[in-house]
Amino acid sequence: MVLCATSHPGNIGASARAMRAMGLSRLVLVNPRTFPHPDADARAADATALLHEAIVVGSLDAALAGTSLAIGYSARPREFAGTVRSVRDAAADAIRHAAGGEVALVFGGEMSGLSNAELARCPIVATIPGEPGRASLNLAAAVQVAVYELFVAAHGERVWRAPAFEPARLDEIEALLTHAERTLIAMRLLNPHQPKRLLPRLRRLFARARLEKAEVDILRGILARIDQLLDRLSRPGPRHD
Amino acid sequence: MVLCATSHPGNIGASARAMRAMGLSRLVLVNPRTFPHPDADARAADATALLHEAIVVGSLDAALAGTSLAIGYSARPREFAGTVRSVRDAAADAIRHAAGGEVALVFGGEMSGLSNAELARCPIVATIPGEPGRASLNLAAAVQVAVYELFVAAHGERVWRAPAFEPARLDEIEALLTHAERTLIAMRLLNPHQPKRLLPRLRRLFARARLEKAEVDILRGILARIDQLLDRLSRPGPRHD
Repeated sequence: MVLCATSHPGNIGASARAMRAMGLSRLVLVNPRTFPHPDADARAADATALLHEAIVVGSLDAALAGTSLAIGYSARPREFAGTVRSVRDAAADAIRHAAGGEVALVFGGEMSGLSNAELARCPIVATIPGEPGRASLNLAAAVQVAVYELFVAAHGERVWRAPAFEPARLDEIEALLTHAERTLIAMRLLNPHQPKRLLPRLRRLFARARLEKAEVDILRGILARIDQLLDRLSRPGPRHD
Repeated sequence: MVLCATSHPGNIGASARAMRAMGLSRLVLVNPRTFPHPDADARAADATALLHEAIVVGSLDAALAGTSLAIGYSARPREFAGTVRSVRDAAADAIRHAAGGEVALVFGGEMSGLSNAELARCPIVATIPGEPGRASLNLAAAVQVAVYELFVAAHGERVWRAPAFEPARLDEIEALLTHAERTLIAMRLLNPHQPKRLLPRLRRLFARARLEKAEVDILRGILARIDQLLDRLSRPGPRHD
């Protein structure tokens, strides 16, 4: 990650944090205006080690020494840009290339981005899609999108899953529906001679919800309790609740 | 966009900036710790109008009134999360749903994200892929990734293109190669009796580079100048350069 002529040290820190969260570690700063700085440390959060290992150099050429592909990030159309790619496609390019050589991701300063001379060092120009005519992203926000796309290009979209609970078997769901039908009739919510659409709708809801075993138990418990109450109500004599 | 219990006003401003760049406009703040605040305005850059139109409410339920889908963004696995989706898949869900109803994007505070009670309001939980075990993203950085993915889901990855220059015709490239061969022989860089791989490599390079007409002219100009110099060198008598 090469940040050129960064004005705000906070953006350097926030970029370091974004890098660490997405598994990148090597940060090179070309002529930063103010670095190191407490704002950089504050915004780096738990990425201060990465930040403190950042290398400061005096030119983009020095930063690119040893790399075989530089991807320049630019929000604005440039006449002499080489291959212009979306940030997603550029991430795929980077991951592919990284198998055989070092790749530099190059960002310009906050005010005007990469100069034409700097972009000329970058065979690939990456750009982040956005609302036309609206101002460009904050530098650290652009870095965040770029490294996020790199992570997804390298590792896919695997995300944590909520713990899986045991799904209900179909025969358990059928037994639930049969129970529900009986109770709804007893509650006079369902006329067995004019069943209408109540049961099909319940069946559809249960199917879509992909009921878990524990949920079937809860629903049958509720039905059983209603059955009890109806039973008491239908008995003659004083009520004892 | 619903930001719950945000601690740092700078993150509110940066989120507004990210929203504007990706074409979103409605910001609702649930119990922000400090708002309005100069830090929010500073980080909002050109999105101060959006920021000043933000609505402040006292509960997530108030923020969600009128919406029919809430997507909660969470970095941490939660036991009772509903459907867990990558931020990319969730963006596709949101765009699909937005055709028929309002969608809320819900983010928790900086320290601990959305509470279990808040996440329970969100049928979809979105999570940003990242390096396992590393700390989560900065709030505004996560908002940036989320709204970027929404923009791409809605509008695709269309990006600006460098202006197209007129490509060279194949016969122009053949003429260039013929000229190059002649000049290289005159320069004694190429032995016509043992041509080796120099010309095939040049042909391959020109093909891969997809030469433009103006570039063929430049290269032929260079060759012509070399021809001139060789011609002067081979003439007898004093040299006049």
